Amino acid sequence: MTIKHPIPKKKYEKKDRPKSMSYTSNLGMTLESDVEETNLYYLKTKRAVIYKKPTPVQIVDVSYPSRNKAKIVEAYYRTPSTTDFNGIYKGYYIDFDCKETKSTTSIPLANIHNHQIEHLKNIVDAGGIGFLIIYFKAYNEYYYLPFNVLYEYHLKSLKGGRKSIPYETFKERAYPIKFSFNPRLDYLTVIDEYIIPTMEKH
Amino acid sequence: MTIKHPIPKKKYEKKDRPKSMSYTSNLGMTLESDVEETNLYYLKTKRAVIYKKPTPVQIVDVSYPSRNKAKIVEAYYRTPSTTDFNGIYKGYYIDFDCKETKSTTSIPLANIHNHQIEHLKNIVDAGGIGFLIIYFKAYNEYYYLPFNVLYEYHLKSLKGGRKSIPYETFKERAYPIKFSFNPRLDYLTVIDEYIIPTMEKH
Repeated sequence: MTIKHPIPKKKYEKKDRPKSMSYTSNLGMTLESDVEETNLYYLKTKRAVIYKKPTPVQIVDVSYPSRNKAKIVEAYYRTPSTTDFNGIYKGYYIDFDCKETKSTTSIPLANIHNHQIEHLKNIVDAGGIGFLIIYFKAYNEYYYLPFNVLYEYHLKSLKGGRKSIPYETFKERAYPIKFSFNPRLDYLTVIDEYIIPTMEKH
Repeated sequence: MTIKHPIPKKKYEKKDRPKSMSYTSNLGMTLESDVEETNLYYLKTKRAVIYKKPTPVQIVDVSYPSRNKAKIVEAYYRTPSTTDFNGIYKGYYIDFDCKETKSTTSIPLANIHNHQIEHLKNIVDAGGIGFLIIYFKAYNEYYYLPFNVLYEYHLKSLKGGRKSIPYETFKERAYPIKFSFNPRLDYLTVIDEYIIPTMEKH
């Protein structure tokens, strides 16, 4: 028999967490868990069905300490081939990822993997809603960054342009997401106000 | 340093595989890999963006045999909270799971978890396209089972009705999916012909 331990926080996330947590501002949670809380609220209130995908793991060895319990004894984290979150809202396919930065001036494009940009491009080309939620820790500000803005900077960077999106661009071309108690990060309101009015019908 | 082994087939899948493989009929692959091949074909031909979600794993212990390589040394399979596949096709949100049966007469409802039925219900209520791909091994036949048919049998079973969907129902109310070389299982053609014409616009 194997005694089950409570699930520890994934260790690779630790480095992404701020060293001193501001409990008043984010209730001690990470951006990702705030988004998961938000999605749970959307699901319960029947507003949207949006889930985080499981962390992809490459399983190498499994043992069977008891008859009907498989124990994975060797596995490795894999690079995800897509973004972390997807689902449906008002009939629209929604797809996004969350990123945070300590920088006060910009978010480095290196934080966003090429395969994630390619994936979001495919989604937007297919008529879906693709975006990033960006958290500027220094300002405690959250932004909805539409894919087209990200893609513009990505293409420029491939041609030798700057390798980051400046904070001013967020002020001008991204949409602030309010942090509140419930839902934590109401990004669907941004989609209602600014994105759906620009979408083509099927 | 840890020497990486090639990824073995997930062991828990073995029991689902037929004992004698018919290489002419399914090229020795499982239903799930046939669907994954199909999705890859759809992605490459820009027809749809549909992925299988990673297998959810509860990670209990991680070691660091080398500086930048995390090795998971204790983890367990978790029950998925949703279906295995989702994505976007012609602007529609698509969500489904694959099931196979050796039975010649019916597929037991026990093969489909309650949380999967609830999830598909949420998806269809939100304006998405939800379904199952069912493989009757005995006949080497694949079917697209619309969610509404599944849900009807599910509700009846809760009221004491039969605990399976009979094979005849597939003949009458499901849509056959052709198995071919590329794409392997062209389920989007079923959606084109029978599902999209019944969908409401946003």
